[in-house]
Parts: sequence; C-alpha cells; structure tokens
Amino acid sequence: MKSHRQELWFNIPSRRAFVNITPQVEAALAASGVAEGLCLVNAMHITASVFINDDESGLHADYEAWLEQLAPHAPTSHYRHNRTGEDNADAHLKRQVMGREVVVAVTKGKLDFGPWEQIFYGEFDGRRKKRVLVKILGE
Amino acid sequence: MKSHRQELWFNIPSRRAFVNITPQVEAALAASGVAEGLCLVNAMHITASVFINDDESGLHADYEAWLEQLAPHAPTSHYRHNRTGEDNADAHLKRQVMGREVVVAVTKGKLDFGPWEQIFYGEFDGRRKKRVLVKILGE
Amino acid sequence: MKSHRQELWFNIPSRRAFVNITPQVEAALAASGVAEGLCLVNAMHITASVFINDDESGLHADYEAWLEQLAPHAPTSHYRHNRTGEDNADAHLKRQVMGREVVVAVTKGKLDFGPWEQIFYGEFDGRRKKRVLVKILGE
Repeated sequence: MKSHRQELWFNIPSRRAFVNITPQVEAALAASGVAEGLCLVNAMHITASVFINDDESGLHADYEAWLEQLAPHAPTSHYRHNRTGEDNADAHLKRQVMGREVVVAVTKGKLDFGPWEQIFYGEFDGRRKKRVLVKILGE
Repeated sequence: MKSHRQELWFNIPSRRAFVNITPQVEAALAASGVAEGLCLVNAMHITASVFINDDESGLHADYEAWLEQLAPHAPTSHYRHNRTGEDNADAHLKRQVMGREVVVAVTKGKLDFGPWEQIFYGEFDGRRKKRVLVKILGE
Repeated sequence: MKSHRQELWFNIPSRRAFVNITPQVEAALAASGVAEGLCLVNAMHITASVFINDDESGLHADYEAWLEQLAPHAPTSHYRHNRTGEDNADAHLKRQVMGREVVVAVTKGKLDFGPWEQIFYGEFDGRRKKRVLVKILGE
C-alpha cells in the first residue's frame, strides 16, 4: 500500500472566491505513484470548502448569490459566533452547504472523473493564508 | 490490496427523481471480493447526487419540495449559468445540498449500514444518460 | 493493510444537539494501529450528522437557528413523511445540509487536521439510542 500527502496553500485576496485546483490535485496524484486507490481532498480550515462541480463563471456567480441568500454575511450582529470578535459566522454556514471534502476514485493513475467534474477550493473568509490537504491511498 | 470499479447507468425519464441503488452497489461489492475496506459511490455528473437516507416516498416528496424552495428551477432567467443556453442551474445548486458522494464502510463483505440507511441516486436534470461510479478499496 | 471498526453510542436527552466526538475518534485511531490511511466517521442513522467544524458554542447556536430556518420542525403537518406517524421529517432535511460523514486523513498515526478542525455528532431527532461508525483503513 502506498500513501501520499500534500498541502496546497492559498492566500485569496478577496473574502470569497472559487478556485479550480484540479491541476494541483492531478500533480499530487502523479507524484504519489498510485494507480488504483482513493484521493481525499479537504479544506483544512472550517470557513472554506472543497467541492466538485462545473468550471463555468456564470454558475460560480449563481453559487455566490445563492449562498449569500441562504446565509448572509451582514448584518454580522445577527450571528452569536461573531460576538467572539469574528465576522465570519456566515462563512462557517456557507461551508456546510458546499462541503468540506471530496473523495475521488483513482483508476489507472488518473482521477476517475465524469465529463465535467472539476475540483474547486471555495473560500468564504479569505485575505489570509489557508490550506487544502490531499491524501492519496492505494497502490 | 484489492480495488474494484463499476459504473451504474441511468436514463431518468423525468427532470428529477430519487432512485434506490443499494442493490446495485451490493452487487458491485459482491463482485469485488473485498471483505474489509471502503466503498465510494459518486455521481459522475454535476447535476446529480448520491446520498444516503430513508426509502420512504413521503420523505422523497418532502426533499423534492424543499429543494425546489431552496433553489427554484424557474424563472430560469434568474440564473447566470442559464445564459450559456442551459436551463439546469438549479440542478447544480440542488446537488450541492444533497451531496456528490457517499463513502460506506465494508465489513465482513457487507455494506456496514445502520438500520435504515439506503443509497440513492438523486437526479436533478434527467432525460439523458448519466452515470454513477462505484469504487471499492480493501482486501 | 489494516482495518479497524468501532461504534460510538449516544443517547442525547434533547431533540437536537452537537457533541464533540474528536477524543473518541482519536481513541479509535490509537486502537487501530494505523499510521497512514483514511478514517471514515459516519452517522448510522438518517436523522443525524457527522461533520467537522469549530468547537464554539455561539457557532453551534447559529447552526441551530439557521437549520431551523431552512427546515423548520413545525408545523409537523407540513411534511408528507410525518403522515407515517413520525414527527422527524425536518431532521432528515437538516441532516442533508450538515452531511452524513467525514473522511479524515491519517498521517503518522494522527488525525491530519487543520488548526480548528473538530469532529461533531449532530443529533436532530434525539431522546433515543443512536450510533456513529468509525472505520479506519491503512497500514
């Protein structure tokens, strides 16, 4: 059995953004030497997501508007979490809708994807350094 | 270490539906010969879900109504994604609520389930051929 | 390859609660002897969640209020599932937002976590015995 671990680092200049990280995950997979197995990709921070969907900017604008409607950032005083001095309670809620992690099958040394699947880092409280973990298990 | 890969194909005649795929996943597990491991089941399309919940038709009607309330299909012009010529932006949103994938423990050659757990394919943009991937890792 | 299976039992005295189960998962990992691998933690019941977020009571109050807004418990007659004699349809919906499971990387014998990640059991229909499954695969 082989295992491989890699961190991806981000410092998103805005509060919120979606970044396609598929090339970095593919590079980690190539470095792992795993041909058959499972690839876990997870946000290491609790105000960010890793999810799989379409790389289409209109859709990303729809996600942004929809998440803001489901869990608005303001008024920040609406959230008890923000009494700790934070202003990011909404980011903890948005991340639950989009998810913490994805698990992707590895087949013949490749991410075993359907036609449009791409992996995204979803940032909901940016403007600082944050990480994603890639862990690959197989042989 | 063993690994096993299988695709399940669907062509749902309606736009939206929930289909119990537990028997097909159990068959894939039996074919794998894996006794102890992990079983990943994921939608290969980004307007569909795989999730675990109850096989109760009233609950499925509740999910349908609730998802339509959280992310309505119409007016389709509400979504920027639909400016690409699609009318399925809502399906991309609904799928995030219900999730892309499940990972199920395999113990003594069986899906290691609680009393009511069943695996469903959730279709949110049907009327065409789409796939689910089953990938089993273990020994 | 090693595999390890353990159940965690709960009997939450209220309808809803969030319980930090990180110490129990760490104990299961220590018992497994796995140094490199993947750790699946999932609710075995379909009205409960396992998720990763912050151990901050204000945030948990925000989750409680937000989930109740997205999928209210009452009026229970609003849900078709409740015509079966249940009153927990909302719990099935809330669980989809928060998720069934987490998969955590295991590195050097530890849960490979970011700075604030903690694992929670989310109960949405308590006052009876329910279980979480921990399954660890690796070597």
